Amino acid sequence: MINKFPVFFHIALVSLLSAQPSHREVAEQIKNKGLETLAAYDMLKELTSTVGHRLSGSDNYEKAVRWSVQKLKQAHCDSVWLEPVMIPQWVRGTTEKAFLLTGKKREELAVCALGGSVATSKKGIRAEVIEVHSLDEVKQLGEKAKGKIIFYNRPFDKTKVNTGEAYGGAADQRSKGAIEAAKVGAVAVLVRSMTNAIDDEPHTGAMNYDDSVHKIPAAAVSTIGANRLSDVLKKEKNVSIRRGESIELRLDCQTFPDVPSFNVIGEIRGTEHPDEIVLVGGHLDSWDKGTGAHDDGAGVVQSIEVIRLMKELGLKPKRTIRVVLFANEENGLRGAKAYAARAQNNNEQHIAAIESDMGGFLPRGFGMTADSSKFEKIKNWSSLLEIAGAEKIRRGGGGADINQLKPFGTALIGLNPDSQRYFDYHHSNHDTIDKVHPRELELGAIAMAILAWALAQEGL
Amino acid sequence: MINKFPVFFHIALVSLLSAQPSHREVAEQIKNKGLETLAAYDMLKELTSTVGHRLSGSDNYEKAVRWSVQKLKQAHCDSVWLEPVMIPQWVRGTTEKAFLLTGKKREELAVCALGGSVATSKKGIRAEVIEVHSLDEVKQLGEKAKGKIIFYNRPFDKTKVNTGEAYGGAADQRSKGAIEAAKVGAVAVLVRSMTNAIDDEPHTGAMNYDDSVHKIPAAAVSTIGANRLSDVLKKEKNVSIRRGESIELRLDCQTFPDVPSFNVIGEIRGTEHPDEIVLVGGHLDSWDKGTGAHDDGAGVVQSIEVIRLMKELGLKPKRTIRVVLFANEENGLRGAKAYAARAQNNNEQHIAAIESDMGGFLPRGFGMTADSSKFEKIKNWSSLLEIAGAEKIRRGGGGADINQLKPFGTALIGLNPDSQRYFDYHHSNHDTIDKVHPRELELGAIAMAILAWALAQEGL
Repeated sequence: MINKFPVFFHIALVSLLSAQPSHREVAEQIKNKGLETLAAYDMLKELTSTVGHRLSGSDNYEKAVRWSVQKLKQAHCDSVWLEPVMIPQWVRGTTEKAFLLTGKKREELAVCALGGSVATSKKGIRAEVIEVHSLDEVKQLGEKAKGKIIFYNRPFDKTKVNTGEAYGGAADQRSKGAIEAAKVGAVAVLVRSMTNAIDDEPHTGAMNYDDSVHKIPAAAVSTIGANRLSDVLKKEKNVSIRRGESIELRLDCQTFPDVPSFNVIGEIRGTEHPDEIVLVGGHLDSWDKGTGAHDDGAGVVQSIEVIRLMKELGLKPKRTIRVVLFANEENGLRGAKAYAARAQNNNEQHIAAIESDMGGFLPRGFGMTADSSKFEKIKNWSSLLEIAGAEKIRRGGGGADINQLKPFGTALIGLNPDSQRYFDYHHSNHDTIDKVHPRELELGAIAMAILAWALAQEGL
Repeated sequence: MINKFPVFFHIALVSLLSAQPSHREVAEQIKNKGLETLAAYDMLKELTSTVGHRLSGSDNYEKAVRWSVQKLKQAHCDSVWLEPVMIPQWVRGTTEKAFLLTGKKREELAVCALGGSVATSKKGIRAEVIEVHSLDEVKQLGEKAKGKIIFYNRPFDKTKVNTGEAYGGAADQRSKGAIEAAKVGAVAVLVRSMTNAIDDEPHTGAMNYDDSVHKIPAAAVSTIGANRLSDVLKKEKNVSIRRGESIELRLDCQTFPDVPSFNVIGEIRGTEHPDEIVLVGGHLDSWDKGTGAHDDGAGVVQSIEVIRLMKELGLKPKRTIRVVLFANEENGLRGAKAYAARAQNNNEQHIAAIESDMGGFLPRGFGMTADSSKFEKIKNWSSLLEIAGAEKIRRGGGGADINQLKPFGTALIGLNPDSQRYFDYHHSNHDTIDKVHPRELELGAIAMAILAWALAQEGL
């Protein structure tokens, strides 16, 4: 046969040697391998069971650093390293209690300290409560707020299909509530948990102080607790409020000096343009409630899975694909800031950065902050991304960590999973592995890997 | 003012009286009202807790008929009626057991009778097992199959993003497995449960007999049970199989004569073209495992919710919107066939039919069997459907019930929710209300209502 058809044979051989699979073929390979192995879920199960939650400054965070170094090595990164960064150390303590004091009853409300809050005194704060629905309403309280506990109770707007928008519309109560309340003389704040779910689990999250304003304790109250408190306040005239005190709040959280820690980084070096970097990442820290399975264990394992899939399939990207697991997203963004500062010092070229930090749910697409030509180029890959059901490419988006790269012209890209269930679990004891579906999680990783591959091959 | 600006006032008044809200405005109203009330979930909670599962021919099915009449009336249908239909009555019985007999051990495998199966004798069937992966493999067994139990163990293809395709690729084992096995002399079949999930819950479902072929008992085995059995069979040489018998199977299910029952129907009469019908439906029956929350309690309450939303918003569709809750989808399609026959007799004009029968998960769009011009017209409404995140309009699809209307040129439209979790629960004890998310379920109802509204106003 060889002697008879030497030309045909030659053509076939050359074609065999030079044939590059199309992006579509690679995307299909990535999808098949991902769904066959579901390795992101196995990693997340391990992270949440062997490490658990991973608050900045905790021993668990350091464990998570070691765990993720090991996983990046097991995924066969070309190199893995740690990037030093000083991170805050806020500790919840052991007491977080609130009691509704009506008549002779002492009724416990489910609360937890907001991240960064100062403590109350040991015996707690007892004061009358004023319910408000906005920061503006607090400003208008003026003198009336003096000595009182301000109870922020504006719920999520249920009519927002994207629950992230509902969160965005309510979160100022948590982030700025203590500052505005302290300005008018309040002694503490209670904030309705940031969720559409009606249950008895408080949801923590970051709150801020202003150095020029007195720091007052701040706690989240479960939505059932918030509804109960609101009902009682409405009927206040019929209830004998003990000595004008309607709430007792006790918190013993503390802030310690910053501690040294790390971002965790691993990469596949690009074969043709190694200096052009496609970043894929999430944040390694979590709040100290639940096990941070969706927030952001999902983003961590999905990012590692991008590398694992490429290495297992023998894919050799032309540009560098780098996984960055950021320290301290939740209460300071120190990891992201340190990363961006070093990237600038080293004059590194990040052409694009993809962050997964909205939970390990069914991917629907990506949100993108990039100039029009880059946006259109990426949008043209939506038929590739459709392989993972993630074809919806929208303007706007990114991620709290990667947004630090904005000054460098990096295309900022956030994975957009479906948002319906996210805030049911977010920052609470409900954020555990049983809320994660192996295939939904993996499809997110697959979508990220397909997009990272296209970016690495085509540039921007 | 009136005297000063009579013309302006007149224009304003006329405009006020004649102003029709745009489809977009109506769609937004539907979305807002739905997400505020989440009434589909409340209905489903009631159906699953007060009625439970609803197998054709059971008392529970009759309870479900009464329950849904009440709900359609509460939703303020213009009329509600029952359509008589004879339905089958297969009863699971109280015994469904399988034991793996290896050496001295008697190890129970989690099984359940497939719907429609005949019973075993009281003492059960004991026989050797042959594992196969396809109907073809059984045909090739020939004489070897005689007196044996055939174990169908072809798993779902995990690489299918749409798990419905994986189901479609595996379900012939369940639907035709007993016929093919009996043809070669087998005495019973065990079928791997139709799911990607690896757990110990068997999933039932319809199986068929051929009147010209001997009827043999058929049971589903959990995926853990199937994996265990397969492992044992692989190591068979090292295991002392007792007297060549490796499985004991006992089922006492029974088929009784057909019983009279009903489809449940309610409608809003169209204001301009009452004879043109837009059907919205699901099936009221379920298997007798779990409480049929996703299959198809979801479709039932979503269909009722379409009417409830329209009535609550005071919407008056030009064409008739009719809810049909079909009897006996799971094991006979008798309800759908009776409905189609009557519709033909009465010369009713169904311009379109929308069925929800793929679970109450996040809606992604609709699949459609319709001619090109109808398809394109509906596809043009995808920007309306995007309000509920259900903008993906695909060719192909419908629903087992509404497909009976195909001969009449009706556009057949199936709601396409995300499929990742559906077969984890489908036809098993896992299909319960705790697997349903109130907002995901409601978004499906909202998508159906928006599409039904556009169809009712614009025709096809």
